[in-house]
Amino acid sequence: MSNNLTAVKHGLSAQDRQAHYGHGGAVLWMTGLSASGKSSLAMALEQALTTRGYSCYVLDGDNLRRGLNANLGFSPEDRSENIRRVGEVAALFADAGLLCISAFISPYREDRARARQACRQAFHEIHIAADLQACEARDPKGLYRKARAGELQEFTGISAPYEAPLAPELTLETARESLETSLEKLVAYTVANIPLSRNHL
Amino acid sequence: MSNNLTAVKHGLSAQDRQAHYGHGGAVLWMTGLSASGKSSLAMALEQALTTRGYSCYVLDGDNLRRGLNANLGFSPEDRSENIRRVGEVAALFADAGLLCISAFISPYREDRARARQACRQAFHEIHIAADLQACEARDPKGLYRKARAGELQEFTGISAPYEAPLAPELTLETARESLETSLEKLVAYTVANIPLSRNHL
Repeated sequence: MSNNLTAVKHGLSAQDRQAHYGHGGAVLWMTGLSASGKSSLAMALEQALTTRGYSCYVLDGDNLRRGLNANLGFSPEDRSENIRRVGEVAALFADAGLLCISAFISPYREDRARARQACRQAFHEIHIAADLQACEARDPKGLYRKARAGELQEFTGISAPYEAPLAPELTLETARESLETSLEKLVAYTVANIPLSRNHL
Repeated sequence: MSNNLTAVKHGLSAQDRQAHYGHGGAVLWMTGLSASGKSSLAMALEQALTTRGYSCYVLDGDNLRRGLNANLGFSPEDRSENIRRVGEVAALFADAGLLCISAFISPYREDRARARQACRQAFHEIHIAADLQACEARDPKGLYRKARAGELQEFTGISAPYEAPLAPELTLETARESLETSLEKLVAYTVANIPLSRNHL
């Protein structure tokens, strides 16, 4: 399909970009049940890291489903394509040199494995591990209630599976610890694992 | 389709991002025939602007067709979806605060109008206006030769139309002027039209 594509070398190397931003590009991929705290943590992390000088961007249902993925529904195929596109866009942001934080349920191991492959060594899987009971008790949008009532089909945790990560880079027990504690762990993980440039940040 | 999406406010405002990067997010959308100089100019511009302190990223066939758009072919529908996705990804980069430079033939006015809509006021259409004769004489990849021989179908300029922009923000006559001259005009356009933060860059 790409017979007539000629590889055009980007003028900037990953090293150039790291020197420019002060840190390497990376993807912090948050996965977990609805209401586990992914979006809140993603937003809080973006804010905390930006304050520390990092260049970040959050991908979530809000900015993806309304634009790039607006032509996808909620069938199994479309959900899978949704996550595939998120993985590819996250890979572009990491290639650009940014710290991309994605916040999607992304319930299937196979879909997450494909996102990891797209992002290569830049990918960091973070399990937002609040259990179903805790998430259902929170239910800030009333979605679990609707799912139990049969008004929502294929709802993760109720009528569709959630395949927990087997070897995530980080696990946050957001049912048992505060958002502040989880945030501290995320910031510490980032500082320890994302390469920094000398004389910067 | 997005009944159960709750708008999550991004923690950072456009103003926060502008203060962080030193300039506003924007999309420099290059359109023109194959071999008109889009990719070379995009790469050179990324390099030149990065040297001046801007944060940039180039979207082109190389990084899009191999990843996000790898499941698209070259049918009219797939070409249109290809450009739609480029426009939406460019909008995300501009939203993130970066200067996104896109380099695609994007021959149809309707497709470019949709990209402009996705990117809103951040969109700057740049016509790389080398004419067919000049592009065909260059033909660095031998594509025009193949298209004339009937080996490539629906080739823009030969067997498919190119709809030139009616009111582009900038036109570069890359058949008549050197890459250096075009590059100088692009840098000058960017400096004059992309908002800068005070005390930065």
